[in-house]
Amino acid sequence: MRTLKCAYEFAAYNAGSTNVNLPTFADIEAAAARIKPYAFETPLLENANLNARMGRRVFIKAEPFQRTGSFKFRGACNRILLIAESERKNGVVAFSSGNHAQGVAAAAELFGIPATIVMPSDAPRVKVEGTRSYGAEIVFYDRRSEDREAIASGICAKCGATLVRPFDDAGVIAGQGTIGLEVAHALAAKGIAIDEVFVPCGGGGLLTGTALAVTTLQPTAKIVAVEPYDYDGMGRSLAAGERVRVSAKESSIADSLLPPTPGEITFALARKVVSRAEVMRDDDFARAVSYCVRTLKIVAEPGGAAGLAALLRSAAKPSAGATVVVISGGNCDPEMLSACCAKFPIP
Amino acid sequence: MRTLKCAYEFAAYNAGSTNVNLPTFADIEAAAARIKPYAFETPLLENANLNARMGRRVFIKAEPFQRTGSFKFRGACNRILLIAESERKNGVVAFSSGNHAQGVAAAAELFGIPATIVMPSDAPRVKVEGTRSYGAEIVFYDRRSEDREAIASGICAKCGATLVRPFDDAGVIAGQGTIGLEVAHALAAKGIAIDEVFVPCGGGGLLTGTALAVTTLQPTAKIVAVEPYDYDGMGRSLAAGERVRVSAKESSIADSLLPPTPGEITFALARKVVSRAEVMRDDDFARAVSYCVRTLKIVAEPGGAAGLAALLRSAAKPSAGATVVVISGGNCDPEMLSACCAKFPIP
Repeated sequence: MRTLKCAYEFAAYNAGSTNVNLPTFADIEAAAARIKPYAFETPLLENANLNARMGRRVFIKAEPFQRTGSFKFRGACNRILLIAESERKNGVVAFSSGNHAQGVAAAAELFGIPATIVMPSDAPRVKVEGTRSYGAEIVFYDRRSEDREAIASGICAKCGATLVRPFDDAGVIAGQGTIGLEVAHALAAKGIAIDEVFVPCGGGGLLTGTALAVTTLQPTAKIVAVEPYDYDGMGRSLAAGERVRVSAKESSIADSLLPPTPGEITFALARKVVSRAEVMRDDDFARAVSYCVRTLKIVAEPGGAAGLAALLRSAAKPSAGATVVVISGGNCDPEMLSACCAKFPIP
Repeated sequence: MRTLKCAYEFAAYNAGSTNVNLPTFADIEAAAARIKPYAFETPLLENANLNARMGRRVFIKAEPFQRTGSFKFRGACNRILLIAESERKNGVVAFSSGNHAQGVAAAAELFGIPATIVMPSDAPRVKVEGTRSYGAEIVFYDRRSEDREAIASGICAKCGATLVRPFDDAGVIAGQGTIGLEVAHALAAKGIAIDEVFVPCGGGGLLTGTALAVTTLQPTAKIVAVEPYDYDGMGRSLAAGERVRVSAKESSIADSLLPPTPGEITFALARKVVSRAEVMRDDDFARAVSYCVRTLKIVAEPGGAAGLAALLRSAAKPSAGATVVVISGGNCDPEMLSACCAKFPIP
């Protein structure tokens, strides 16, 4: 399989005017306080082999250890806590390939409200089982022929439930941004400045929330968005200066990063806080997953390892500041782990 | 495969008099200061699913994230730093199935001294490769027919190198004890008392070091040693009141826990600080490894997951205090991970 690396370079803070209400740094701080009793502060790990390979200090923000196995619990929890008490009992609805599904289902279960999740019929088994284990009702749809947003809206209209969007929602983005807050505070406590942060990008909620928190506290930090080849909606949109919808011919093993276009809010925010976008192929994801198992000892899913994939493809370079990689999720079928490790015995 | 659970119960502090010099709590505190620039403070993770399953709060001390992928770096690093400067240049020698090998090799590499490691020819590939990657010379031996200790002593005699024993050494035990120190301090900072600590036991270095630190800071904490079936040298020795040597008919997938008898020092110390020993079968280890991948998102090796195996076989019970599980290493061939996950799809 060929591998191709595309990189767009953006000037930070290059955004034009926007009509959407963007989440603020204060929203992220409020989210951190709101979700603190429910979410875990995940570890920021360092690995001697990775440091040696990259020639600098690399810190891994490990969201597989978040409740539900991915960062998505943060945004879902914050968003559900923002629903008025009187409306919460009507429940929540979400559409998701699996991680947002589990995040919403687990948060809903914690607060004792019903959840219905619209999932693609080809979602990884581990994600379907996880979602079901949190007591949510699952409605399957066909990724190629059906419109998940329409199905979800229909359910909401019928029962008065609140739709918890996977990324294009200020409350969700603020929740994901708590990752950036934790990273920046932990490194500041060690007296270490942040050079670059590699973040997986699907719809851009994790990317923009993390970027907003980090760049507010460390204005010189550069944020790198990493997307699958042919699913680089964010990179192309940032390059074009307007939202672009991609139409990929083939699927990708990075199942969590396949939205065809960034959200309205995430795109507007990304223009302000993201400085570069990179594209990775399936082999890059697989190599990163193998590296996670063999060297980092972390179970990561292909999309969750996108930031690491980009780092591993880059050249070693000394740096005084830290490179941060967000590994966003670990909900990976063991068969996929095994296939990645078999394909890349020396990652 | 049948599974069998054996448990011996010991009164804590039941030791008789002893002629060996035991490491002290002060030795562990000194080790912590000594290895701080080189070892990582590993995270103490909590998992919502595990808490729900066990009916109480469980904290995972995750040593797969230690340098070299297991706790062994701690003891090796402390021991090597205790060698007189003038003797260090002659190098170090160790015998080990793989984790102590890597710990010694990595510490020796850090301090720029030569290391020779005597390893069994059937050691997991990942451990052999790891040891080699730290620049050590490897000498293979046959586990059934050759005496690794004699081979190692021979090498030492020839070149004046220092033998770094895998467990029966006060400096090594004090280094491993820094795990107990970190656990006790982290939980004290949260205001949480420790009820029980499940620790994998091979020769007993990790077990007794951890136990000494924890029971000094939390005298009511109970320490549980977990060994493979037919390799329960520590449990049988504690029950007999003297060191017993086991002779197992079959091997075990818990390759890191196969010493036939506890050390003189580890046995004498265990009599003071260990309250229970349990025995696990290969299926218990495999189930725990699968649980680590699927739920905890940690790569654990079978022996490293021994403490978790014992916890998962025990009944859920509410408790005000914390249950701690030390996952001691993650140097597992991907094929082994995959086999464990395939055998236990629902762990």
